Amino acid sequence: MDKQRFKKQKDFILEIDKEKSIFRQTHLTGLVRKENDAEHAWHMAIMAWLLQEYANEELDMAKVMLMCLIHDIVEIDAGDTYAYDEEGKKTQEQREAAAAKRIFGLLPEDQGRQLHELFYEFENRSSPEARFARVMDNLQPLLLNISNEGHDWREHDARGEKVRERNSKNALGSTELSEYISRAIDEQIQKGNLKE
Amino acid sequence: MDKQRFKKQKDFILEIDKEKSIFRQTHLTGLVRKENDAEHAWHMAIMAWLLQEYANEELDMAKVMLMCLIHDIVEIDAGDTYAYDEEGKKTQEQREAAAAKRIFGLLPEDQGRQLHELFYEFENRSSPEARFARVMDNLQPLLLNISNEGHDWREHDARGEKVRERNSKNALGSTELSEYISRAIDEQIQKGNLKE
Repeated sequence: MDKQRFKKQKDFILEIDKEKSIFRQTHLTGLVRKENDAEHAWHMAIMAWLLQEYANEELDMAKVMLMCLIHDIVEIDAGDTYAYDEEGKKTQEQREAAAAKRIFGLLPEDQGRQLHELFYEFENRSSPEARFARVMDNLQPLLLNISNEGHDWREHDARGEKVRERNSKNALGSTELSEYISRAIDEQIQKGNLKE
Repeated sequence: MDKQRFKKQKDFILEIDKEKSIFRQTHLTGLVRKENDAEHAWHMAIMAWLLQEYANEELDMAKVMLMCLIHDIVEIDAGDTYAYDEEGKKTQEQREAAAAKRIFGLLPEDQGRQLHELFYEFENRSSPEARFARVMDNLQPLLLNISNEGHDWREHDARGEKVRERNSKNALGSTELSEYISRAIDEQIQKGNLKE
């Protein structure tokens, strides 16, 4: 074992512990409390495995799960930007780029580079795994929010149009899940859980 | 899409949300609060990827990550049994078997069976992936605890002998990490963070 290499890996492992303190706008089922990024990522990675049969393209499951697990690590520095926060989104890219450089830079160079690339692959939907992981990133909070009868949408006065826009690229990763999500959004509007 | 099948998958996805409310005895770095099972599993799965070079045997990474992610789902019903709680451990196996049957039983039969088998594989260390995932299950709280100068050991009056016993099978999954853990335990005893 190369001790310097292992120390870098340990430093990164302890650094990402902070992701458990980055809270999102989504509430857990039953409105227990808001969810944090680590919990969201855990949930997404399991969902990716469970729902892989609906992916448009063949997936490398280790890659898609790892992508789900690490996609929000940058928020340790950059904070969570709510999906419908237009002001925050203007500076999001820059904040997250600096965070990725610092945090993945803690790792041995080869591993840091791999995770850095995986993060951008996810962001840019530039692989089958990324296109599918992005669907999980939308579907996971949607399922929680539906289970809470649209509480998070109401809290932020979100509108159907914006939710549809955010979900407009799901079909790139999964036609079947995209169709389910579209129907679910329509249904939530009909129920009055989401404003037209 | 088979709607009945998808409904079972969604039911399971919402059910496991409860894992975020199962708290462990381990504290986050900086003693922010206790960690929950979903966070622990997320951390372990990333560690498995990062530290795979120290595994004794070749690993199927998708399998080892999934195993890490789902290994504590049974605690939704069975609760967390602290590693050094001798009373709780007497009934742990029975409680967890009933939980596995109910929770994995929510899934379509093929997926439920796969996760059920994966859970027992982990428990019994019956594959290279399981032997390595079990090391992550020990190493993850150890690193957090060391970063907190042994706070969790002190809180539970844990002794070096017991910690060594819990860690006695790590070498089955990773000789290198097992050696690191043994040295770290000795060091923590020397520092007075863990009682001899």
